[in-house]
Amino acid sequence: MAPVVNGRVLFNSIPEGFPVPGETVVYDTSEHIDPEIVPLNGGFLLKTLELSVDPYMRGRMRDSKIESYIPAFELGEPLLGHGVGVVLRSEYPGIKSGDHIYGGLEHKEYAIRKDLNLLSVIENPYNIPWSAFVGVLGMPGMTAYTGWKEYSRAKKGEVAFVTTGAGPVGSLVIQLAKADGLKVIASAGSDEKVQFMKDIGATSLSTTRLRAPEAEKRGRYWDNVGGKTLEAALDNAKIRARFIECGMITGYNTGYEPIRNLGLIIGKTISMNGFLVSHLEPKYAAEFYRELTPKVASGEVKYREHVYGGLEKVGEAILAVQRGENRGEGGRTCRR
Amino acid sequence: MAPVVNGRVLFNSIPEGFPVPGETVVYDTSEHIDPEIVPLNGGFLLKTLELSVDPYMRGRMRDSKIESYIPAFELGEPLLGHGVGVVLRSEYPGIKSGDHIYGGLEHKEYAIRKDLNLLSVIENPYNIPWSAFVGVLGMPGMTAYTGWKEYSRAKKGEVAFVTTGAGPVGSLVIQLAKADGLKVIASAGSDEKVQFMKDIGATSLSTTRLRAPEAEKRGRYWDNVGGKTLEAALDNAKIRARFIECGMITGYNTGYEPIRNLGLIIGKTISMNGFLVSHLEPKYAAEFYRELTPKVASGEVKYREHVYGGLEKVGEAILAVQRGENRGEGGRTCRR
Repeated sequence: MAPVVNGRVLFNSIPEGFPVPGETVVYDTSEHIDPEIVPLNGGFLLKTLELSVDPYMRGRMRDSKIESYIPAFELGEPLLGHGVGVVLRSEYPGIKSGDHIYGGLEHKEYAIRKDLNLLSVIENPYNIPWSAFVGVLGMPGMTAYTGWKEYSRAKKGEVAFVTTGAGPVGSLVIQLAKADGLKVIASAGSDEKVQFMKDIGATSLSTTRLRAPEAEKRGRYWDNVGGKTLEAALDNAKIRARFIECGMITGYNTGYEPIRNLGLIIGKTISMNGFLVSHLEPKYAAEFYRELTPKVASGEVKYREHVYGGLEKVGEAILAVQRGENRGEGGRTCRR
Repeated sequence: MAPVVNGRVLFNSIPEGFPVPGETVVYDTSEHIDPEIVPLNGGFLLKTLELSVDPYMRGRMRDSKIESYIPAFELGEPLLGHGVGVVLRSEYPGIKSGDHIYGGLEHKEYAIRKDLNLLSVIENPYNIPWSAFVGVLGMPGMTAYTGWKEYSRAKKGEVAFVTTGAGPVGSLVIQLAKADGLKVIASAGSDEKVQFMKDIGATSLSTTRLRAPEAEKRGRYWDNVGGKTLEAALDNAKIRARFIECGMITGYNTGYEPIRNLGLIIGKTISMNGFLVSHLEPKYAAEFYRELTPKVASGEVKYREHVYGGLEKVGEAILAVQRGENRGEGGRTCRR
């Protein structure tokens, strides 16, 4: 086999507002690799199968001098994200050709890895599609599961309000809340998404991200949105409501919207918990895979994907995710 | 004894911004009472000794049609607040002349009560001044104690930032945090208050309520202020910081200031707990009095009072408390 192009997605410029496809990141074909003979030096060669494009990635597209919980992407270098790859060749103990690997991958078609740092081998006895391991069984699913288990104190009969309920995180939150006996109100940005939320059990739906009309006070709030939706959630919260703060995508590209009624958390005795999945994953990972894997395999837990098809589409996928224009759960996988 | 004036403080008009002495509330002398012969009808006659004027009272000076966690004051009727009274005469079982009573009192000099609803008899084996039972051993002290115990997960070596640290709530929070081995940074609005905070153990002090210059990241935040101070606290919080949301006095008179950086609670995994002392009091009251009473008696726990001297000064006291112009802990007692 002759050398082939090792396509990469490079961080090219820091966006001022929304990321611009072809400018913020660029698809680069300057690197070549011969998968059959490239030296492994004791490591293994991974071919990337699935890459997830997630909302939080916008936060890494910043000046590296600005501190945050996760390092900035490096200009001129490939993006980093959650992905699945298949091992083509290996000199690494315990890893063999054909193994599937999940974890932090560079946005490139082939990569030589020297160890399993931030990676793990996927056990897949149910033959679940590999893409699920970056969606409902990957970081987004883990986010929903850990946040809900750690902070919801789920209680039968409570009303939960879930934002971005058709997305990979929100749609699993809806299903977890339903399984715990809660009534779920959910919001998403299109009729098509609302239909999906209905299919997975949200009993009362709001079609916009803004103030919901329902008079019923809500005991749980899952926030992926922030801004005016969060203000509405504070207004509509009942006493002792629990707010799980997972994301505030309204603020990622144009700056956080001010919250004008946060004072309500005192009179309503509201608890608000911000969290990062990376902090909770060690506590819940085993339970998550044990509980969710068979349910995903049987179809009891539902998910959707939006396949963009190829690394050259990552720029487009990034913008769609930031604008909420991708469709449905797990809808961020990038593969040909 | 001839009838005497039963002075009262009546809620007179709903303030638009800060309460206006002589307008928002008025001191009224139209009611008379003869303490020696007024019929008790099975109840008891209380002479008011101490009344506390607290920040939360501003929230009751509203249109009664607006819902909140506590009813609005009724126009033309006496204010209600925490107070201490002495029993002058009693026909009520178990209550005798000379008993001291703590609880919810009307702002009037004499009152006939028919039962102990919202009231309790003060045990005072250490002969602590009665005024302490509306301050460090009353609702403000209980607020500090219950909020700190329930939410702080106090950990030796952590840095706590306490706002309004010279007030009756904040100054006890400082002392509780110090006793738990934390380093305490505190803020208050005057040099005189800063000196008091230093006396009770705050090791690093900020003299304004705005952004603090300290570079040290803080693991606990006690909020009585909201607004820009809360924004600064979010900026200065460390990972997994715990925010105890007790009050936001910057918003009580002129509307809540918007919070522009609440998104930080996600990346920093911050928990924020709003609370009302009334919800936590049943859980902690016994422990609070058992632990705090001897420490207040011995002087180990320090407090200060600002005595305004008489019901006719309540309007002035209310405004001073809202402006933060009262001096020091327990500084809200109204007695002649």
